[in-house]
Amino acid sequence: MSLLSINKSGNVITLIFHNPAVLAAVGGLTLCGFHSVVRSLANSVGLTFKKSRIGANEKGWASATRPEDFRDWGGALLKWITDYRENCRDIHVISRVEPNYLQKGLPTSAPTVGEGWQSIMSDLDSKILPGLTHWEASNRFFAYFKPHASYPAVLGEMLCAGLNVMGFDWIASPACTELEVVTLDWLGQFLNLPDKFLGSSEGPGGGVIQGSAGESATVVLLAAAVRKQKAQSERTKMVVYVSDQTHAIAQKATMILGIRCRVVKTSIENRFEMQAADLEAAIEEDVKNGLCPIAAVATTGTTSSCAFDPLVPIAAVCKKRDLWVHVDAAYGGAYACLDKYREKFEGLEEVDSFCVNCHKKLLCPFDIAALYVANRRPILDALSLQPEYLRNAHSESGAVVDFEHWQMPLGRRFRSLKLWFVMRRFGTEGLRFHVQNGCDLADYFADLVEKDEELEISVPVSLSLVCFRWKGRGEEDQQRLLDAVKATGEAFVIHTKLDGRIVIRVACGGVEQTKEDVLGCYNVISRELRRIK
Amino acid sequence: MSLLSINKSGNVITLIFHNPAVLAAVGGLTLCGFHSVVRSLANSVGLTFKKSRIGANEKGWASATRPEDFRDWGGALLKWITDYRENCRDIHVISRVEPNYLQKGLPTSAPTVGEGWQSIMSDLDSKILPGLTHWEASNRFFAYFKPHASYPAVLGEMLCAGLNVMGFDWIASPACTELEVVTLDWLGQFLNLPDKFLGSSEGPGGGVIQGSAGESATVVLLAAAVRKQKAQSERTKMVVYVSDQTHAIAQKATMILGIRCRVVKTSIENRFEMQAADLEAAIEEDVKNGLCPIAAVATTGTTSSCAFDPLVPIAAVCKKRDLWVHVDAAYGGAYACLDKYREKFEGLEEVDSFCVNCHKKLLCPFDIAALYVANRRPILDALSLQPEYLRNAHSESGAVVDFEHWQMPLGRRFRSLKLWFVMRRFGTEGLRFHVQNGCDLADYFADLVEKDEELEISVPVSLSLVCFRWKGRGEEDQQRLLDAVKATGEAFVIHTKLDGRIVIRVACGGVEQTKEDVLGCYNVISRELRRIK
Repeated sequence: MSLLSINKSGNVITLIFHNPAVLAAVGGLTLCGFHSVVRSLANSVGLTFKKSRIGANEKGWASATRPEDFRDWGGALLKWITDYRENCRDIHVISRVEPNYLQKGLPTSAPTVGEGWQSIMSDLDSKILPGLTHWEASNRFFAYFKPHASYPAVLGEMLCAGLNVMGFDWIASPACTELEVVTLDWLGQFLNLPDKFLGSSEGPGGGVIQGSAGESATVVLLAAAVRKQKAQSERTKMVVYVSDQTHAIAQKATMILGIRCRVVKTSIENRFEMQAADLEAAIEEDVKNGLCPIAAVATTGTTSSCAFDPLVPIAAVCKKRDLWVHVDAAYGGAYACLDKYREKFEGLEEVDSFCVNCHKKLLCPFDIAALYVANRRPILDALSLQPEYLRNAHSESGAVVDFEHWQMPLGRRFRSLKLWFVMRRFGTEGLRFHVQNGCDLADYFADLVEKDEELEISVPVSLSLVCFRWKGRGEEDQQRLLDAVKATGEAFVIHTKLDGRIVIRVACGGVEQTKEDVLGCYNVISRELRRIK
Repeated sequence: MSLLSINKSGNVITLIFHNPAVLAAVGGLTLCGFHSVVRSLANSVGLTFKKSRIGANEKGWASATRPEDFRDWGGALLKWITDYRENCRDIHVISRVEPNYLQKGLPTSAPTVGEGWQSIMSDLDSKILPGLTHWEASNRFFAYFKPHASYPAVLGEMLCAGLNVMGFDWIASPACTELEVVTLDWLGQFLNLPDKFLGSSEGPGGGVIQGSAGESATVVLLAAAVRKQKAQSERTKMVVYVSDQTHAIAQKATMILGIRCRVVKTSIENRFEMQAADLEAAIEEDVKNGLCPIAAVATTGTTSSCAFDPLVPIAAVCKKRDLWVHVDAAYGGAYACLDKYREKFEGLEEVDSFCVNCHKKLLCPFDIAALYVANRRPILDALSLQPEYLRNAHSESGAVVDFEHWQMPLGRRFRSLKLWFVMRRFGTEGLRFHVQNGCDLADYFADLVEKDEELEISVPVSLSLVCFRWKGRGEEDQQRLLDAVKATGEAFVIHTKLDGRIVIRVACGGVEQTKEDVLGCYNVISRELRRIK
């Protein structure tokens, strides 16, 4: 089917678009003058120029395999995505649908005959959009840690899917493995990581892309367990140390692995940082009781308050008993690119592994976590298997990296593409601006809080996070304030508990967030507080 | 910067495209007559129409956040992907680069100043393309199991990245959770799965998207272990049963979990199917020795030869000792939509879980594995954790599904979008055609092998896989033949070992593969065999 027909009737030329994607493309071109060229040329010879739209409704699946269909509707979807991001900045940020809204709104079984894109696109607007909480698009999103799927990274994900190569071993697609090594080295340098973590270094270390900080923690804790297997065969006797501020992923990892998890308490006096002396006391007690300490997880930028566990003393304590030290820098890691946070990351030379989520502050869509290890060997020992159908000459030569042995699943996407696009398109300059901007916005927001007599900052502002409370009020009022703010849909903020007390968290964004956005968030909080006071 | 300028000089109008994406878009429109309208209108008034291209080289990162940049270069990338798929069908299928080719070809650190898309796109051609083994694009790919990232699914992945919502719990984006329930129910019905696996059923079962069959196996085996924890606290005493044909992912899962893996031998006489009697003997022996059997993994469509373990007797044996039965249908599961394979899946009513990879035969790009469980409770028991910052009223009401508790990581992408696009765009008709076509092609290839006096089929053809040997020749000759075929780059086939002997595997494709492609593969094998004979 042709995409466009031209009717000449008398002195009128009508262009009939059978496909809204082409219409959209022409619409785009209009902006840059193309359309008007046609119009003025038509006018100059005494013709009238009109365009009209005839909806295509191609049935059946045959067209779904056609390149034109992909390009046309891909173009329409690119536009849908930009429209979403442009138009949904100021709408109710939290979805207000009722449970099972979609089950009720969609057919109970798949269509027999393939449908056209038009009906799918129309369902995106009418059925999917209402069920979204706007993590990416909204400038009212200050909950969790704001993600940033920059446009170049979205294209990287599209290319990854379009190529659909499997990167489990080197020969499965050398570019997939090698671009990962290159981009993780670029990132490692950008974050001022020690050389030992770089793939290009002489040593046994290197980086690997995992799906998440949780998978990364599970992989390194497994390696730590296998490393101690000779000394202690029972995993239930092995212990991993975390603090009460460590993200739940670490505890989940120990549940998966069947290892004990011991929680070291922190306190507000020490800004919720794990104290090396407390860690050491816990380790020594466990050793005395016949247990086998295998690893500690330190966090640089905790979820609740962006606290930084002190790496140097923690690593020193762990060294005495040969514990693996893993640094969970899922969110905070990105800030290692800023001079003002350099000292917070001191001690990385002494730790065994480091994980930063590129899908948090590094402009990539979920999922891409960069895991760096000082020594790959314990991970390979824990996860290597070589079934017959995967044996090949390259792998057996030992000259190449086969990342399947660095992770839990076998298959792997070409995920480095999105990070590569980001690093090239933004440059270290653009990336650093983005990270710095988050800090600046948080400082600005903290200023607003400090000037408000009804509010009080709970812990020193760290990274892009501000934690505060309704001053002089009890827990119930904090919750009332939170609920009131959430209900407006004008700002999405969540709470955490610090020292047993509810604290409101405002996590600022980056490159696309402005002071006005942050002021807007403050204004909602301030207004609601005064309303329910 | 404008995308297009118009120069009028004398009687010549020149359109100058500053952006190749726009040029490409106009090029596309040319095909449908738009361009020629301009030309003929220009001609009719005595003007000459020319277009010229001026390379844009916009520096810096500011434009990387602009919607136009995303749409324009997204359009260019859509075209790059279709060109790749159209033009790389007949090129050397296995990458021929040397180890470290890319490290040598790319800068050792990220650029400071953001680069324009043109240089990135140019590197895609010159640096990435040579390092690809063409899983998706090539019609010469008969190795492993051919993946099929259909165009609609690629767009689904793009949309997922563009929205970038986190789906860990319901309120994080209800559409993400609910579309997953809906599409997995659609898929379950399409595959004739028992009702107990559907989310819409009354019972405690349901489906969940995992990254891979490996993650799925790890999750269910963990659930099986936790279920037995009261009876046996040491994981090293727990045993999971697999056959020597089970994919290595199952063994990897037991390594992660710290559980024993016992391998039940199969034989060519029983077409490499796990025998229930052998399984039972192994279980009883282990029980006698004080071990604790917890689960068995049955495979419907093994990797080496697409053998089907008999589910009914295996489930009966496992029931006696209360073992969890997991069915790994990573590849074979898709064939449950065909009547002729219905009986091979008999017994699903009796098993506890079932996993099929939508990224294998169901037209989705990696990664999307559909895991169905008869009872979600043991999985929730094994993986639930609710830290303070994730507590919310909806989850606590119990009225919604929070998929974070069904999986190892916390975060989750909106992966059901790609499956939804596939099922709507192809319909069950199109999907079934695709699966059936793979079978037809395999039958056709098997015919060619059977008619060739130099070759012999090794096991009955199953699904889309043909296993054969060079007749009357030893192992060395099989390897010589394999190496010769691979070296041509005209067909990518791999080997496996069955009964200790090398067997050549040819896995046929689906919707986009033709008889000519399969004949081409056979011709290469036949020609090379005669050349090295």
